[in-house]
Amino acid sequence: MEFKEKPIAVCLVSGGMDSCVTAAIARDEGFELAFLHLSYGQLTEKRERKAFEDIADFYSVQHRLVLNVDFLLKIGGSALTDRKIEVPKGDVQRQGIPPTYVPFRNANLLSIATSWAETLQAKAIFIGAVAEDSSGYPDCRPEFYEAFEKVIEIGTRPETFVKIKTPVIHLTKAEIVKRGVKLNAPLHLTWSCYKSEELACGECDSCLLRLRGFKMAGVIDPIPYAKIPAEFAFAK
Amino acid sequence: MEFKEKPIAVCLVSGGMDSCVTAAIARDEGFELAFLHLSYGQLTEKRERKAFEDIADFYSVQHRLVLNVDFLLKIGGSALTDRKIEVPKGDVQRQGIPPTYVPFRNANLLSIATSWAETLQAKAIFIGAVAEDSSGYPDCRPEFYEAFEKVIEIGTRPETFVKIKTPVIHLTKAEIVKRGVKLNAPLHLTWSCYKSEELACGECDSCLLRLRGFKMAGVIDPIPYAKIPAEFAFAK
Repeated sequence: MEFKEKPIAVCLVSGGMDSCVTAAIARDEGFELAFLHLSYGQLTEKRERKAFEDIADFYSVQHRLVLNVDFLLKIGGSALTDRKIEVPKGDVQRQGIPPTYVPFRNANLLSIATSWAETLQAKAIFIGAVAEDSSGYPDCRPEFYEAFEKVIEIGTRPETFVKIKTPVIHLTKAEIVKRGVKLNAPLHLTWSCYKSEELACGECDSCLLRLRGFKMAGVIDPIPYAKIPAEFAFAK
Repeated sequence: MEFKEKPIAVCLVSGGMDSCVTAAIARDEGFELAFLHLSYGQLTEKRERKAFEDIADFYSVQHRLVLNVDFLLKIGGSALTDRKIEVPKGDVQRQGIPPTYVPFRNANLLSIATSWAETLQAKAIFIGAVAEDSSGYPDCRPEFYEAFEKVIEIGTRPETFVKIKTPVIHLTKAEIVKRGVKLNAPLHLTWSCYKSEELACGECDSCLLRLRGFKMAGVIDPIPYAKIPAEFAFAK
């Protein structure tokens, strides 16, 4: 009987819902998962790291890499990394670049993922980018990933072929929840809140997007919240 | 009298000759210099850092940023960052990817430079890439920088315009030496050796390329060597 190795996919796993479902999709597509977690000094770093390990354990992931990329903290310019800038509450519909934007963050994350992918001879990088969230994030749009894939083609060894896969990029948060449920992704192990590490705050942009997604999907969000805005209360 | 601020250029300054001359060119083109040094666990990190500071002092650079990007060390796969892989001696003409290659290193460096450039509202990133050196380094070729510039266009704020400038990319090492001499660049403060921190070894690829460059330019290399191969002896 011939043994055929699965191709490896590097999955950027923040610990949030989008990256968890993205990893579930990579696994469903037949890849061996390699989990990459990049901590860059965000306020909820410890909680996200725990979510990463919990999800990795859930999928029995062997290749795990956690890297400190706190140079992003030193470059500054974002509410997620600069404690002097307040994380905004609510108003998900706000226009323009949100203050949680870390300049060119995703290019940094993808560059690291590509270095690891080339080392592992992986065939793909999965990233849970969502276009719906990206009105203000220039490095979350499909065009950005297409352009970056060209950089990988040109900038790696001739024998290296790494595709960037963004399987949830055109999904709504509700569709991501449904997809996760369908694939039995461990949504209960994920963490989305930008502000708190014990109970999700229920107030920050990320909590509101998540709560809205579960509400629209008609699914109860399994993680605990400090408080849930009235409009989403039935989601619990 | 109207005061017009100079545009800022982020210069990636390793401490080597190419990046020193590149910075001299950026200054000559009228940019205010912002010096970025990225240490990634290379063997000669301390010596390169000293060269960086010396060159920054020489040009009275105010914006200086030194970042530890040792995640490259943890990803591994290169003789520069993995002490188990021997740095090759000599044979500059060797074909293929040299073992000093850090997978996708320049994409990581450029991503960081872009994040800082966006924070500083800089207009350009100068990097001392040299095509002559790049037969084996896929992320040192002009096509790579062109592709990366597109990623920057797409992946940054609408008001951010950052050009990637590689002014020495088509120059030979000899032409770089001549250009540096013409611009009074502080070549005596630079460091190129991959192996040693006291006296340049005169044996590694980087030393040999440098010595050959000075010889072809008919200029004496002002830095001290432990030994100089006979073919380059007259360069001293």
